[in-house]
Parts: sequence; C-alpha cells; structure tokens
Amino acid sequence: MNITVVGLGLIGGSMALDFKHMQHRVLGVDANPFHQREALDLGLVDQCMALDQAVSQSDVVVVAVPVGVTPSVVLEALNHLPTNGVIFDVGSTKKGICDAVAKHPRRARFVAAHPIAGTEYSGPSAAHSGLFYRKLGIICDREKSAPDAAERVEDLFVQLGMELKRIDSDEHDKHLAYVSHISHISSFTLGLTVLDIEKDESSIFDMAGSGFASTVRLAKSSPEMWAPIMLENADHLEVALESYIANLQLFKNCIKQKDEQGLKDLISKANKIRQVLEKRG
Amino acid sequence: MNITVVGLGLIGGSMALDFKHMQHRVLGVDANPFHQREALDLGLVDQCMALDQAVSQSDVVVVAVPVGVTPSVVLEALNHLPTNGVIFDVGSTKKGICDAVAKHPRRARFVAAHPIAGTEYSGPSAAHSGLFYRKLGIICDREKSAPDAAERVEDLFVQLGMELKRIDSDEHDKHLAYVSHISHISSFTLGLTVLDIEKDESSIFDMAGSGFASTVRLAKSSPEMWAPIMLENADHLEVALESYIANLQLFKNCIKQKDEQGLKDLISKANKIRQVLEKRG
Repeated sequence: MNITVVGLGLIGGSMALDFKHMQHRVLGVDANPFHQREALDLGLVDQCMALDQAVSQSDVVVVAVPVGVTPSVVLEALNHLPTNGVIFDVGSTKKGICDAVAKHPRRARFVAAHPIAGTEYSGPSAAHSGLFYRKLGIICDREKSAPDAAERVEDLFVQLGMELKRIDSDEHDKHLAYVSHISHISSFTLGLTVLDIEKDESSIFDMAGSGFASTVRLAKSSPEMWAPIMLENADHLEVALESYIANLQLFKNCIKQKDEQGLKDLISKANKIRQVLEKRG
Repeated sequence: MNITVVGLGLIGGSMALDFKHMQHRVLGVDANPFHQREALDLGLVDQCMALDQAVSQSDVVVVAVPVGVTPSVVLEALNHLPTNGVIFDVGSTKKGICDAVAKHPRRARFVAAHPIAGTEYSGPSAAHSGLFYRKLGIICDREKSAPDAAERVEDLFVQLGMELKRIDSDEHDKHLAYVSHISHISSFTLGLTVLDIEKDESSIFDMAGSGFASTVRLAKSSPEMWAPIMLENADHLEVALESYIANLQLFKNCIKQKDEQGLKDLISKANKIRQVLEKRG
C-alpha cells in the first residue's frame, strides 16, 4: 500500500518506520522542513512531499499532528483522498475531531483513532520501531466510519502489535482526562514547583531519589503537543482538576490539623491503585 | 562488629542483609513478631531480641522505624548503648529527631542520617541486597556528633556503596519537602482522583499508558511510613503544597481562559526539569 504520514514526530515517525518494515511505501508530510530532512535521513519515510500530492496517491493517510490542527489537516486530506482511501488520526482527544468532520460528505472514510503509546520525548529523532507493540489501539465512534475503512485501520493496528478497543469519542476524552491528561498536569506542576524553590539546581540533583524522577518524568513532555490537548479536553479536564485539587486539600487539611489517622486513611485509599496497576501486569 | 537493626522493613532489612554480607553480626529488633519471624526466615538478621538486650552488646545501632516513633526508640537506645557505641537513624525527616536528642547527655553518640533509597514496597519481604549502591547517604548536623561516631557511620555508608553529603537538618527537611514528600502527595492524590471517578476499574486498566503508571507509582507507598513523615515535615510541606496548588491553579486558569500560549509557557518552564534530571545521569 501507499501510506502517507502527516506529522513526522514521535508517533507519526514511529508508525512510518513500522510501515516501512512492513514493505509499504511511506510518504512523509511535515510543515517543518527540518523534520522532513531528519525523517528522510533517519529512514522513517521513503519520500517527502506536499499534503495534496501525497494524499492523492495514498490508500491510507495517518494524521499525527498536534490535536489543535488535526481538524484542518483531516478536512483538507479528505478533499484529496482517492475514492477508497482511508484517513485516520492518532490524537489524544477525540470529540473535537469527530465533531469537526461530522458534516463532511466523506466522513465515512475517516477513522478516529488513538494508539495509547508514547514517551516524554518528541520529534523525528524520538521515533523508534516497535513503539506500538502490546499497546492499546482505540477506535472511536466506529459506527461513523465505513466498515471497510475501520477494518483497514484495525488490521494495520493489529499488525503493529496493538490490541483493539472501541469506545465513544466523548467517553474516551473523559477517561483520558483522568488516566493521562491529569497525570501530565500533576507532573508539570511538580516540575514547576520544585524549580520555583530550588534556584540552586545542584541540590535537586543531589537530594532527589528515584521516586521524584518517576513522578516528574512527564514534565519533560512537549508544549506543542500538550497545550492543545488540554484545551481540546478543557471540559472534562476542569472537572478532573477540581477533583484533584479537592483531594490535595484533604491532604493539606490533615497535615494542618496533625490528623495522622486521616492521612493514613487517605493513603490507604490511594493504595488501592496497586490492584489496578497489578492487573495491568 | 555487632550491629543492631531496629525496624526490619525495606530499609532496615536491606541494610541488615548488606551488613551480614560484610560479615558483621546483625541483631534484629522489631515490635512486630511476624516481621521478626520473616526477617529470620529470609536470613536478614542472625538473631532477634529485645531492644535493650541487643543495643547493650552493639557497636552500631540502626534505627529504621517510622519517623513518628524514631525519637523514643533513639532515646531509649542511647540509654543502653555501650560507651563507644554509635546510633544512627535513617528517617526521611531530620529536624524532629535532632531536636528530640539535643539535650541527651550522650547526644554525640547519635548520627542523624538519611540514605536516599527505597521503593514503593515495604516490610521485610521487600528488603534486598544492594539497595544503597550508588545512592546518596545524607548526614545531618554532623558537628553535633562525635567525630569518631560520624566517621563510623560514613564508613559504613561508603561500604554500602553510597556517596556522602552533609547538610543542616532543617535545610534537609525543606529540600525533601520538594523533591520527595510532595512527589508522594501528588501521586497519592492522582491515585485518589482516578479511583474516585473510575468505579469500573477495568477501564483504568484499559486506557492508562505507561505515563500514568510512572506518575502514580508512589501512590502504592505505605501509610505507616508516610503519614508520620508528612506530619514531621508539616511546616515545610504546607508551604510546598501551597506553591503546588498555586501552580495547579495557573494551569486551570489557562485552560478556562483557552490561553494556549499561557499553557505553552508553563509547560516550557516545567520542561527545564529535563536538564536537572539529565545531569543526574
């Protein structure tokens, strides 16, 4: 197949690489000429070209750009797509893009997808083979896509090693607010707070253990990717943040009131996450 | 040497094991008879006995109990310690214990220490050899300890593979509030918030990626250990929490006001933690 990948960052670049290994012809599109160059040098894609030119000769188009620009890219790509072509996106929010394409006459050729994979690094140089192996590939509002289009995306995801899950786009965004977006905000906030106080960076270096490194890891994530996700998922995220802040206040009040039993109860409740994580294996 | 380890959990048990490998005779003390039994079965200690009996025949006493009970254990141990014996603790807060022993006639035989090592697991079964290898061994208020006492502890730490750092006890607590204690609170809070919303645990299992697992890892930590740490370090922790909550509010306000540039600025600022973490190697 001919596959176009729009956005040659961590996700798009890694997918491009795996598709090349699967003997597909991979065309790269990226607004950033340095990323195009890097992707070619790293062998992530066979060729780089303009969006309309690439899409018009493709069986599959992957849109892997920040979620804020995903709608405009998908809409433009739909206009150039061959009759039986399929477009899917890989963004971390799904309701916005589903709403944006809802009225497009070729909506059925689009599949709203989200592979739950990534690292805190970004750009073509962060791309690597096998990123999607044993990860979850989510398909949203599948009934809005033509059966053959959804199947083609699902087949590709399975070939990349993913397990499939189907879910409603708004449900997806609500869940992700809790298990991903708020994790990132808590980690960014931890980074900010520690940097605020520790003007002398060498003391952070000295005194921080592995627990800090683990909790703050996501604070390295890219602003270009994450600011748009937070805005796209603003409604669910505001509710999640209020609940997070309320839980923080419970800790703060117990500390203020020297309520050791209250703290132990909160921590024991939080410990239940252990069972959830262990089920994941 | 004869070494007594009081508290046979993750830290005390791991230290006992390494001391045994170094051919020291290790006496175990633990208020919990099941932990005594487990420590003997796992070969962490040579013998278990009562505190006074063990301490009175020891060259070195390690106090590895929750920080809330550390002062009473250290004070009692000082009363039974042979003339040239040395006691050190390993707790995550240091000002409280230093204040508690300040007036004791044998204060100079005590060394306030904190090896920055641990995992989210606890109890004798979590103990393992090599836990302290390449970790930081902090000695607080070293000038309050007799030189030979501090040297004996530092020698042992170096033999366990630790690098040494000397710091004032209050300074220690302030730093740890930021690079450790608040990481734990943010992680406990994340666990609570997600458990609150996700009554159906299988959806957390499904949709959470590796980022969530990393951020929530510390939420598995023990209430018995962590509630006392939070109370001991209440003053610094309240300030740190307020700053953390204020930073969270910045995110929330930007999201509410759809301020994409504001979010990008916050995230870029948080990204600076990358340099700090990379320096650590």
